[in-house]
Amino acid sequence: MKVSQLFGLRFKETPADCQIASHIYMLRGGYIKNVGNGIFSLYTPAKRVMQKIEAIIREEMNRIDGQEVLFPVSMPASLWKESGRFDSVGNELLRFKDRGGNDMVLGMTHEEAAVHLARDTAASYANYPFMIYQIQTKFRDEPRARGGLIRVREFTMKDGYSFHTSQADLESYYAHCFKAYERIFTRVGLKNFVAVAADSGMMGGKVSHEFMLLTPVGEDSLAICESCDYSSNADIAESVTPTINSCPEAALEKVHTPGMKTIDEVRTFLDLPIERKCKAVVYQSGENGGYIAVFIRGDLEVNETKLQNFLGEEIRPAIITEESGLNPGYLGPYGLNGATVLFDNSLKGIENLCCGANEEDYHYIGFNIERDYGTAEYHDFAKITDGGLCPKCGCASIKLSRGIEIGNIFQLGDKYTKAMDMRYTDETGDNHYPIMGCYGIGIGRLAASVGEEHHDNFGLIWPISIAPWQVHICAIRADNHEVSETANELYRSLADKGIEVIFDDRAVSAGVMFSEADLLGIPIRATVSPKTCSRNIIEISTRDKTFTIDIDTHSSANYIEQLVKDKLNELNKF
Amino acid sequence: MKVSQLFGLRFKETPADCQIASHIYMLRGGYIKNVGNGIFSLYTPAKRVMQKIEAIIREEMNRIDGQEVLFPVSMPASLWKESGRFDSVGNELLRFKDRGGNDMVLGMTHEEAAVHLARDTAASYANYPFMIYQIQTKFRDEPRARGGLIRVREFTMKDGYSFHTSQADLESYYAHCFKAYERIFTRVGLKNFVAVAADSGMMGGKVSHEFMLLTPVGEDSLAICESCDYSSNADIAESVTPTINSCPEAALEKVHTPGMKTIDEVRTFLDLPIERKCKAVVYQSGENGGYIAVFIRGDLEVNETKLQNFLGEEIRPAIITEESGLNPGYLGPYGLNGATVLFDNSLKGIENLCCGANEEDYHYIGFNIERDYGTAEYHDFAKITDGGLCPKCGCASIKLSRGIEIGNIFQLGDKYTKAMDMRYTDETGDNHYPIMGCYGIGIGRLAASVGEEHHDNFGLIWPISIAPWQVHICAIRADNHEVSETANELYRSLADKGIEVIFDDRAVSAGVMFSEADLLGIPIRATVSPKTCSRNIIEISTRDKTFTIDIDTHSSANYIEQLVKDKLNELNKF
Repeated sequence: MKVSQLFGLRFKETPADCQIASHIYMLRGGYIKNVGNGIFSLYTPAKRVMQKIEAIIREEMNRIDGQEVLFPVSMPASLWKESGRFDSVGNELLRFKDRGGNDMVLGMTHEEAAVHLARDTAASYANYPFMIYQIQTKFRDEPRARGGLIRVREFTMKDGYSFHTSQADLESYYAHCFKAYERIFTRVGLKNFVAVAADSGMMGGKVSHEFMLLTPVGEDSLAICESCDYSSNADIAESVTPTINSCPEAALEKVHTPGMKTIDEVRTFLDLPIERKCKAVVYQSGENGGYIAVFIRGDLEVNETKLQNFLGEEIRPAIITEESGLNPGYLGPYGLNGATVLFDNSLKGIENLCCGANEEDYHYIGFNIERDYGTAEYHDFAKITDGGLCPKCGCASIKLSRGIEIGNIFQLGDKYTKAMDMRYTDETGDNHYPIMGCYGIGIGRLAASVGEEHHDNFGLIWPISIAPWQVHICAIRADNHEVSETANELYRSLADKGIEVIFDDRAVSAGVMFSEADLLGIPIRATVSPKTCSRNIIEISTRDKTFTIDIDTHSSANYIEQLVKDKLNELNKF
Repeated sequence: MKVSQLFGLRFKETPADCQIASHIYMLRGGYIKNVGNGIFSLYTPAKRVMQKIEAIIREEMNRIDGQEVLFPVSMPASLWKESGRFDSVGNELLRFKDRGGNDMVLGMTHEEAAVHLARDTAASYANYPFMIYQIQTKFRDEPRARGGLIRVREFTMKDGYSFHTSQADLESYYAHCFKAYERIFTRVGLKNFVAVAADSGMMGGKVSHEFMLLTPVGEDSLAICESCDYSSNADIAESVTPTINSCPEAALEKVHTPGMKTIDEVRTFLDLPIERKCKAVVYQSGENGGYIAVFIRGDLEVNETKLQNFLGEEIRPAIITEESGLNPGYLGPYGLNGATVLFDNSLKGIENLCCGANEEDYHYIGFNIERDYGTAEYHDFAKITDGGLCPKCGCASIKLSRGIEIGNIFQLGDKYTKAMDMRYTDETGDNHYPIMGCYGIGIGRLAASVGEEHHDNFGLIWPISIAPWQVHICAIRADNHEVSETANELYRSLADKGIEVIFDDRAVSAGVMFSEADLLGIPIRATVSPKTCSRNIIEISTRDKTFTIDIDTHSSANYIEQLVKDKLNELNKF
């Protein structure tokens, strides 16, 4: 491919509203163009990156006996009604009516379609296990599309579905798939990724893992123990807090705290450690609007995902009206009316708490939940904290990091096969519901994640395994006959070796040519100029700017061929 | 791949409601499964066929300098409002609202998206010409999905868009693309296809061609001249009728034709040749319901596509009410009130016509349009007829055939660039709208069309270029140690040569194995059985049942390798 013919532009200016590197450089490098909210067109370089990622994923899925199929993007709603998700999934599921007035959905995930395809064809235990996967367009009506290809509404995804006759068989396959995912992320060039335990969310099932690229720009918060192998999405990481030393039991006492509504005001005024403050955080049910007051240790925060999972319904921060009878700033468990009361584990066994008295300008001190409130149920509602206790090894070595989810795997159980009545007959003639696993990777997000990990201030630096081209020839002064001859000869030689080359044959300055090459981010560069020609060499360098070498012109194609092989091999080590 | 692990079933029974071979055998062969009206999931064999077709199309599009991109399936309606098609296209365009209440569409074609992607990046004449294409899912809300993958609502399509600075440049590229299409259809194994002039329909533009597979099950009617190179979709083929010999001019005379409403009744009663009958066919406007009476020679039929194109609006067969004042069975141009009158070319210059008198039980004879009706405009509204005159060479050698549209190419002109204000600057600094071409191929329909041309009573017979696997090993009595060893050795040898093999390793009878192999339709078969083992040979045959040969076991892998190469080479000759 010649740059003079390459469709798309590379440009200097950072477009407005771009926060993260992959978004900025994919726009500036001529990779993507925004079509609508969270919807992009891909130029040829991006399409080539996607195709290479897809080829790697295909290889790894086939290696673990995956069989590629294709499910439709548009599906009759009846399938989603069978599973129950037509009603249970929120607005991110795009529902529409076709010309005949029939309810339809756009696939955001394909468990239903997978069961539909499998249920007539796997009637005997002898057909199991099997895994089917597709690479297909998906639409998810995200409320907050952001970050270029990181969070979009339409995307290409690899989604796989495995079917098993036992939980043990699923677990064994799940472990294989886990390894396949590690190979995929390694092969596309990622280094700094981890797998964390995850919330199964709307997918159902119990065990699930997210593969996360560690990066400060990630949307997800991860809890990783520096002392053991514990790692979890912070949304589901158990918060463990040490019980503070007990002190002589005090009596419950109402104290005047005029105008003091914040925790800091109250604890300073009363000279209490923050660990003795019983903080109220109030939500409303998304369904009926009822108030839910969560009481938690003063220095901790409520993790809303945990709360939602506990309640089994959506919640929102409360709007406290005058009619509610609630006294914001003075809420406490004792004597509270008009709200469901929940306690976080952090308050368990803590004596002599301070809490609101449900009365303007008054708090209690010496509050003891068991003695003064009665039987209380405690649950884990708190956000895990940086430096906090590891729920696995108990050390105070939890580190919070940010991550981008680059893949996920779920043990689904029989949620879908049961709901959609898919059965098989075992050796004895009995019927059972198969056990499922599912396995997803968003292709565009993975490409963008690689861009997050591999860029500098000049543009993207693609790993050779997924670079749109492997080698970028820059012909400086292409109007010079010798330069043109040498560059064209190298272009042909490399093409004959099956190497993918982009050749900048334009009559532009060296500055423009190099800065556009930096933006495009091809890993290996070969520069031909009047100067190199006069020395009968070609300058070979790497896009990461760590390596430059002059090679005799006649040896340069072979040298580059070996360099490409070496770089590819490096990424295939695991 | 081993058949014991292949996901999907092959079966004997022809499913209900299947009319055509490709549909029947794709279902029975474990290729496709219906998910909803005109929506299918693809099993692995079908996915592999699609991938091979896609690879061939990519090669040919890249050969004519196409650059692969990806447009979104879901698009903001604003793009389609810019082009005017949000309003002008009918219900086949799926419109929906996203969670924010914004109008969206599902892409059924991507001219708008192509102009959107190109309009900021091709500002100078120096950027032209270029062609961008994608292979992507499309949704078209067809009122009548039918025939398996022949006419569906969701499908994978290759759609390409070229941009030019002159009509001449478009025409030159169009000719290249025409050749590329011929190569594509040849390479996928089609023999019996033609290109015909076509109606541009909702796409706009003037010149367009459809590539048609000739087959009796085709939906389209084609007019092909057996004397010259004229070929056209019958929908737009000009109908040419000879003027019948004139006879002495007769006077207009009203005659009593009691109860005679049909043409045959009238012309028998009056003893007139059918060519002198002026037949009325009445339509109503789809928009305002007004009546349109088309008068045409008695032996000809109205081509509704031509009529719609002339009127520029949709029409429907008329429902004639009592209030309309129209006398069905007795309609004639003379004295007709309440309907727009149109004349077909076939009536031009014909004297002494017979037509209805717009009065129950009466007709006119001796009707002469110019003399009795006055100035009349004639247009081409008639269907071309089998054995009729060729509009190009004038011979009576038109043959009507049925065809399936397997691809189309359009010269679009500046319809989209003008509507969406895409411009470039020429050498002199002036602004112009680029000229566009567009080029489509439906992948699934092409696969099904190959199935229509290549099958027998036992199943599909894939051309080797797009077969899901190239070779099918049948191990009869796989429980026999020697059979198993020999078949496995052949499987490994072929795999090492890069040949794609499906290996039936199941303990099923020879009858089941062969009939399922026939259904799957792999072009080359290698049979290993106790009998072949005892003779130290392998039986090699072709799925079309024209060829069987016994080859020494130790030579068989090399023999098959050569056979695969020969068969592939055959399809690459053009």
